[in-house]
Amino acid sequence: MTKFQAEIDVMPKKEILDPQGKAVTGSMKNLGLAEIQNIRIGKHITLEIEAENAEIAHAKVDEACKNLLANLIMESYSFKIAQV
Amino acid sequence: MTKFQAEIDVMPKKEILDPQGKAVTGSMKNLGLAEIQNIRIGKHITLEIEAENAEIAHAKVDEACKNLLANLIMESYSFKIAQV
Repeated sequence: MTKFQAEIDVMPKKEILDPQGKAVTGSMKNLGLAEIQNIRIGKHITLEIEAENAEIAHAKVDEACKNLLANLIMESYSFKIAQV
Repeated sequence: MTKFQAEIDVMPKKEILDPQGKAVTGSMKNLGLAEIQNIRIGKHITLEIEAENAEIAHAKVDEACKNLLANLIMESYSFKIAQV
């Protein structure tokens, strides 16, 4: 068994309003950073997985994203896997 | 002025307990994914910034992270900037 680390990004879909991101974009003006626009806020998830090879690790992480980590109605996800 | 996009990761520091990540790690067992361990959950933030050059964009995003996006007592951050 080999140990892999996965780095996952879960973001609100483009067509979905991101109220948290919108609020933070507004706050940038008060910080004197009005040149920062269109902030979107999602989740960054790291995890470790033991698997026989990278392909199996990839499939399991994909399963975890689909079934637990991302809400596919409102969110999309992407991830990278690297051997630890 | 050039437009840049930044991709920012804000994560709980290693020495800080991450109760959300711990809870999700526990749920993996119920999903039949007990080989997934040590989940940590932070934020992934994307934003757009107009600046004269990449160096200035980098400095402004760093300022935004320090002053608003990350809580430096409990979180660390990293980011990449790319021209759009």
